[in-house]
Parts: sequence; C-alpha cells; structure tokens
Amino acid sequence: MSRPIRLADLAAAHGLELRGDGDHMVSAVAPIERAGPEAISFLASASHRPFLAQTRAGAVIVKSADAAACPTAALLSDNPYASYARIAQQLYPSARPEPGVHPTAVIADGCRLGAGVSIGPLAALGTGCVLGDDVIVGPGCVLADRVELGAGSRLVANVSVGEGVRIGARALIQPGAVIGADGFGFANDGGTWVKIPQVGSVIIGDDVEVGANTTIDRGTLEDTVIGDGVKLDNLIMVAHNVRIGAHSALAGCVGIAGSAVLGQRCTVGGGVGINGHIEVVDDVHVAGMSFVNRSVATPGAYASGLPLMPTREWRKNMVRLKQLDELARRVAALEKQLKNA
Amino acid sequence: MSRPIRLADLAAAHGLELRGDGDHMVSAVAPIERAGPEAISFLASASHRPFLAQTRAGAVIVKSADAAACPTAALLSDNPYASYARIAQQLYPSARPEPGVHPTAVIADGCRLGAGVSIGPLAALGTGCVLGDDVIVGPGCVLADRVELGAGSRLVANVSVGEGVRIGARALIQPGAVIGADGFGFANDGGTWVKIPQVGSVIIGDDVEVGANTTIDRGTLEDTVIGDGVKLDNLIMVAHNVRIGAHSALAGCVGIAGSAVLGQRCTVGGGVGINGHIEVVDDVHVAGMSFVNRSVATPGAYASGLPLMPTREWRKNMVRLKQLDELARRVAALEKQLKNA
Amino acid sequence: MSRPIRLADLAAAHGLELRGDGDHMVSAVAPIERAGPEAISFLASASHRPFLAQTRAGAVIVKSADAAACPTAALLSDNPYASYARIAQQLYPSARPEPGVHPTAVIADGCRLGAGVSIGPLAALGTGCVLGDDVIVGPGCVLADRVELGAGSRLVANVSVGEGVRIGARALIQPGAVIGADGFGFANDGGTWVKIPQVGSVIIGDDVEVGANTTIDRGTLEDTVIGDGVKLDNLIMVAHNVRIGAHSALAGCVGIAGSAVLGQRCTVGGGVGINGHIEVVDDVHVAGMSFVNRSVATPGAYASGLPLMPTREWRKNMVRLKQLDELARRVAALEKQLKNA
Repeated sequence: MSRPIRLADLAAAHGLELRGDGDHMVSAVAPIERAGPEAISFLASASHRPFLAQTRAGAVIVKSADAAACPTAALLSDNPYASYARIAQQLYPSARPEPGVHPTAVIADGCRLGAGVSIGPLAALGTGCVLGDDVIVGPGCVLADRVELGAGSRLVANVSVGEGVRIGARALIQPGAVIGADGFGFANDGGTWVKIPQVGSVIIGDDVEVGANTTIDRGTLEDTVIGDGVKLDNLIMVAHNVRIGAHSALAGCVGIAGSAVLGQRCTVGGGVGINGHIEVVDDVHVAGMSFVNRSVATPGAYASGLPLMPTREWRKNMVRLKQLDELARRVAALEKQLKNA
Repeated sequence: MSRPIRLADLAAAHGLELRGDGDHMVSAVAPIERAGPEAISFLASASHRPFLAQTRAGAVIVKSADAAACPTAALLSDNPYASYARIAQQLYPSARPEPGVHPTAVIADGCRLGAGVSIGPLAALGTGCVLGDDVIVGPGCVLADRVELGAGSRLVANVSVGEGVRIGARALIQPGAVIGADGFGFANDGGTWVKIPQVGSVIIGDDVEVGANTTIDRGTLEDTVIGDGVKLDNLIMVAHNVRIGAHSALAGCVGIAGSAVLGQRCTVGGGVGINGHIEVVDDVHVAGMSFVNRSVATPGAYASGLPLMPTREWRKNMVRLKQLDELARRVAALEKQLKNA
Repeated sequence: MSRPIRLADLAAAHGLELRGDGDHMVSAVAPIERAGPEAISFLASASHRPFLAQTRAGAVIVKSADAAACPTAALLSDNPYASYARIAQQLYPSARPEPGVHPTAVIADGCRLGAGVSIGPLAALGTGCVLGDDVIVGPGCVLADRVELGAGSRLVANVSVGEGVRIGARALIQPGAVIGADGFGFANDGGTWVKIPQVGSVIIGDDVEVGANTTIDRGTLEDTVIGDGVKLDNLIMVAHNVRIGAHSALAGCVGIAGSAVLGQRCTVGGGVGINGHIEVVDDVHVAGMSFVNRSVATPGAYASGLPLMPTREWRKNMVRLKQLDELARRVAALEKQLKNA
C-alpha cells in the first residue's frame, strides 16, 4: 500500500533540512519506539524524547533542537507532527478508483460531471447534479437533485446527500453520512405537531471531512453552514441552521442543537452536547462529555463531565448532590450563627 | 421551489381572517426582521414584537391582539406558529418523484403496491411487502420481507427496514434510518453471551417522522411500539420493547434503553439517556443532556445536565464532588457541635 | 416463523432433565405470566417466582430447586436464561436467503466466495474479497477491496466495510454499520488541520455482533481490534486503535475515543463515553451515561451519571455545584473556627 522513497526526495518535497544519508529509502511510517530502518518516525512531544536515543527508525522528523540527539537520519521541522502527516500522505496515497461511471450507477438527467470523475457501482444521482473534476462518488451513495460537489471531493460509500446541498472542494465524506436531511422543526397545535418545511440547504466549505454516520440537517429558511477545513468525526449530529466556523474539529458523538453558532478553530471533545440558539466564540476548547448549556464569550478551555466513581461512592454522592442547595443553606446558617456568637 | 399565492386564497385555505389587500401575492416565508414584500412571516412570541412595527413582510400571521400594531397585511390566528407551518407547507410543497418502479429497483415476489407508489433507483423490496397508495421508497432503501408501509409514507434514501415491520400512514423516514434491527438481548453463560432471538417486530403509528440514522430495534417477544404523531430527530436509539406514546417529540442523540415506556406528549431534549425498564408518564418534559435514571410519575419539567465551567473551576469542583458525601457529614457534625455548644 | 418441537426432543437437544410429558409440543417462547400451553418459558430471577404457581406455560425452564413448585412440565437447567436463549434460537431459526449471487449484485475481480454464500440484491464487493462458507451479504451492503468475512458471518443490509477489514466467523452485522472508515487523526499546522493517513485496519474476532449504525474506525498505524464474542449495540462509536477485550458487551450510544483499551468481559451501559488513551481492566462494569474519564485498574462497578431532578431543584443545585469548591473551603473555615473556639 505504501511506496518507497529516498530521504533526500522526501526532504525536498516537504522543504525540510535533512541530516543523514539522502539515499536511504523509507517505505513506511511507525511509532518511534517500534520503527525499523524502512520506517520514518517523528518526535512531537517531550514525553517521547527518551525513545529517541534507542530508535531504529530509518529517519526521524525532529525539531532542530533535537537533531543532535538523533542517532539516525533526521529531518528538521518546526512542526514534526504536521510534517509527519504530510509525509505519511505521500507514502500512503489513498487508492483511487478508475475514472468513469460504473454501468450499474444511475445518473438522472441534466447532471454535469467534471474530468476524471468516478461514479461507483450502484450509486444514484438525481437530476441536475454538478460534480467538479476528480470527484469520487462511491458505491451505494445517493445524491438527490441539484447536489453540487467541488473538485476532488470523495463520498466513500452509502452516503446520502439531500436536494440542493453544496459541498466544496476536496471534501472527504465517510460511509453512512447523511447531509441535508430535514431539520427537526414542528409547531405544536393543541397537542399534535405540524411540520415546518425545511427549505434551507447545507453549504459545506472546502477541505471538510465528515465522519461515518454523521448527520448534517438542512436549514429551516436559511442554510446550515460548515466552514472551510472543518473536521467532523463519526456519529455527530449537526441540527438545522447551525454554523460551524472554519477549521473547527469535533470528535465523535457530538450533538449540536438548532441554530447554534460555533466559532473558528474550536475543538470539541467526544460526546459533547451543545444547546440550541447559543453562540460560542472562536478558539474555545470543550472537553469530552461536556454540556455547553450556554453561550461562551471568552476563548479558552471548558468542561462539565462528571468523573467516574465506584458505584457505591457515586450513589452516596448523588444523594447529597440532589440536596446541595439545602446543604449550602445550612453552611450559610452555620456561618451566620458563628458570626453572631 | 415555492409557488406564489394570493393572500385572500391563503386566508381562505387556512380559515384565517385577513386584514389587508387580498390580491397581494406571496411566494416565500421569512423571519419577521428580514422578510420582504414577497414573504409572509409570523409573530409567535412576545420577544419578536419589537420587529413588528418595522417589518417589510407582505403579510404577518399574528394573534388578533397584535393585528392593530401590524403595519402590513395581517392574517389572524390563535396559533400563529402552527398557521405559519401549514402555510409554509403550501408554499413549499415537497417535490415528489414520479410514480412507478425504477428499472434498477428490485421487487421480490408477492409484493402489493398501491396506486401512485414510487420505488426509486436501486431500492430493494423483500417478498410480500405491502405498500399503501402514494408510498415513496427512495433510492437505496432496503425493505426485508413482509414490510408494510401505510398510504402516503416516504422513505427518503438508504433506509433499512427489517422483516415484518409495520409503519402507518404519512410517515417520513429520513436517510440512513434503521427500523427493525435485532434488539440487544443476550444471556450470559459462564462469561460468554448467548443470543436471544428477537422475534417481536416494530409497529409505528400514523404521521410519524424518523430522523436520519436513527435506529428503532425490534422487540424480543412483543413489539417495539411508536405511537401516532411521534417525531424522532436524528441519531436516536430506540431499544427493543420500548413504547413511545402518541405525539411525543425527541431531539437528536437521545437513547432509550430496553423496555422503557415513555408517555404521550412528552418532549425530550437532545442527548438525553433514558434507562431501561422504567416508565415516564404523559406530559413530561426532559431538558437536553439529562439522564432519566428512574421512572417519572408526575408530569412536569426535569433536568440533570451538568452546566459548563471553565476547566480550572470544573477540576476543583469535581474533586469536591467526589467527596460530597463526606462534606455533608462534616456539615452535620458542625451543626451538632454548635447545637451542643 | 417458529417450528413446533416435542419437549423430550428439546430436553435431549439441550442436555436438560425433563420433568413432565415429553410428547407435549411447544412452538413459541413467552413470558412466564403470559405464556400459554404452546409456549415454553423460564424462571431466571427470584422476582418472577410468584408467577410460577399460576403459569399456563407448556413448560418452564427452572433451576432444580424450583422444579417441585412448577405446576407444568419443567426443564431443569443451572442457567435457565441461557437455556431459554438456546431453545428460542431453535424454535425461531433466523430466515436465511437462498445461496447464490443476486443478478444485481456487483462482484469485482478476484473475489473468492465459499460454499453456500449468499450475496443479496444491489450489494457491491470490491476486488479480492474473501468470504467463508455460508456468508450472507445482504442488500445494499458495500465491501471495499480485500475485505475478509469468516464462515457463517452475516451483514444484514446497507452495511459498509472498508478496505482490508477482517471479520471473523459467525459475525452478525446489523444494518447501517460502518466498519473501517478512516480514524479521526489530524495534525494542527498553524490553525489548519493536516490529515494523518489511517493505514491500519479493523480486525474483528469470532462471534461478534455489531449493532445498527454503529461505526468502528480503522487504526492509524496498527489495527483497531474487537475480541471474540464482543457484542456492540446500536450507534456505538469505536475510534481508531481501540482494543476491546473478548466477551465484553456495550449498550447503545457508547463512544470510545482513540487508543482506549477495554478489558475482557466488561459491560458498558448506554450513552457512556470512554476517554482516549486510557486502559480499563477486565471485568469492569460501567453504569449507563457515565464518563470513564480515567483508567480503571480495579474490577468492579463504576458510575458517574447525574440523576434526574425536577428542573427547579436542578437549577438551584447546579448553581451551588458551580461554587462547590468555595463551599468546601467555607466548611473547612468553619471547622477551623470551631476547633479554635
């Protein structure tokens, strides 16, 4: 799956300074403590520095300050982890299906397919879809009418995209994702629910990744908007009218309720719930399993998950928690009593 | 996507009193603060009343008490939000595929299709399925044997329905939903699990909506039952033997464990977990990210989500929370000491 | 759906002692309080013992200590629930599609299909897939290149499996599951994310069940590993590099972050979140809606879900919770003051 390359060529391709034998070939990436001579590794955090002296890697990507301590070839980078990511991309190019439309795919009228487009077996495109160059629509994907996919985007398999959804360039949409289903909007009329048509769409920027079985609903009147470079993990729920700022990254099982606005460069841990109609500014970092119950106006780190306890202790503490307001009142009473004493 | 209509015709169609020019045409709905003359809007909550005087909307749906303050045409309704929903449905009729069976669909033996049924490309129906009039089975949907779909129901795309599942009239099932997978039932035998066959089914009433990638498992011996008018958002998990009462609405990422019973007209916020084998009465409203760990016998509002804190404060508070029982004992000791003093 | 059988034959097939008429036929399983003469039931817990004297069941599976109290035929078992599960499997054999490849399925070059394999309508297999005997690939399933499925495994419908994933024997994969999507790995480079290729795979042992719309990501460099006999419910997220030990069972909506290790024979309740890069030993049992924020080194029962409160009480208690550290300090100050008094 990987292709071998000379260290000197790697260094040149990624603009890194090489210390060591430029003719050495590497064909793999591996963790620094397990890498062999055919592998390139990296040193990103101080906690792994003890492994450097013993590494058997063919080369290690390091900051220049660590170059002297590297017993093998070193590639110098200001950001070894990012350089490693790019080198790994080069060593392990993702397999691309052949261009062309598989005979079992169904393409409705009026679709425009760019150069190099690949439509896999048993995929279905509605009328008037527009696919940029090199788009890949994998097996079992369903596009409704008038979907637009930017150049280089890939829908892996069994992805569903609703009417009129627009996805930018170089998107990677993992299997089972659903983009552009109806938002959840109903008016209550004497105890029953009247559906509110969801006539907005979903607009996704460039370089977005959407995880497996993640769902992004269409807007009610306006659009649900996912900014450039946003990365969404699996089983995330993005409700109608939500806006996610550029380069934010959300881990698995996050739910964002309707009309919430999340800023740019935010990170959201797994299992977090974000309330509807709130606004979170740029550069907010929310720990896993938190509940963002209110707007966040100040960048920084936030949390609210309850830590694990042995069940017996948990039970006792939770009884007290349900009486916490009363406990606080009792403490205040004691303080008053002592002050008056 | 929308179709223009005279205000007088709208008023007549929805049984509303019109104040203003009946010949004015509207073709869109829009928020009151952004609507132009071609759009109809509504005033549902007092918080939006300041926008009424300045609105440029072609018409506004208001309660009669607000009619005098409306600077443009007014449609009088006791429930402006519900009237707005119905008018929006009329202005934005959902696109229907042509009736007929797409040549790439696979229909097994013994299926009965009502008048006007549309089976999309690459859909597969098992043996003996029964589809009422005007049912739409979208692209990529898979129905196992003996599935029944009531008149006017629509499975949008890539929906999976298990053997013998019965869905009522006018259902709307969003992409990726799975209805009738096996419930999660295993007996432990000396450390390994023995599967308990899940021989019940799923029975869904009329006018139910099921969100994208939501899953509803079949019952173990009896059926999992979803009442009339229930609305389920995306990525909800309904386990085996659960019963959800009519007209309840559940937001995204809710999980309901096995054999739980939820009453009628309940609302459940996003991310809520509901314990198995408990019973929640009618008219209970649970806030997002709560844990319904016990039965609820009294209608009303409930919650248990932990509010967000800056991580530094969160850390300190959580250390204390794990010692809360001890803290309460210390307070009691202080009280005793002071009483004796 | 079920097939009638003589009690004597059932007893012999399952190695159980029969007390009663061996010629009596049963054709169903039912709860002890509702079973009729055609049904077999079981008594697993003391709480159901009051129903035993009145049962109308054709036979009841009981521990030998309960045999005397059984008013009808009794099958004696050390583990009535497990015996019941196996007998139910015999009475309700799951319907198998006919062997063969449906004409609408797409099988790429180089696949090897064992004896009795069934490939359903509109399924797609990539190149070089290897399917053991009696494998069932249901309608709409998509296998990428070089997927391996062990003998007797079944993918029900619309399942997506990524390149090179290996699944053991007798797996049951419910609809919509995604196995082998890319893990969520990115390096941050000056505010934007660089994708880290996910070149590991997913390796699943024998006798594993994967629930509807559950996702299991492929590893970054090494593999994500699911042990023998593991049972995963619906809408579970298993991130890259996770290892789940044999015979662990996870309920719906659980999320496990990257590189977490879960031991053998663990049980995890619904909605639990498990942090990345932690290790949970064998025989740990986590209650629903908990947050496993740290490694767990001791077997036993753990929890952290916040119990439900009426919203008014919840609000007051949460205000106090956010000040809990301060409250604890005030209690300490009172203690000091009284000690000094």
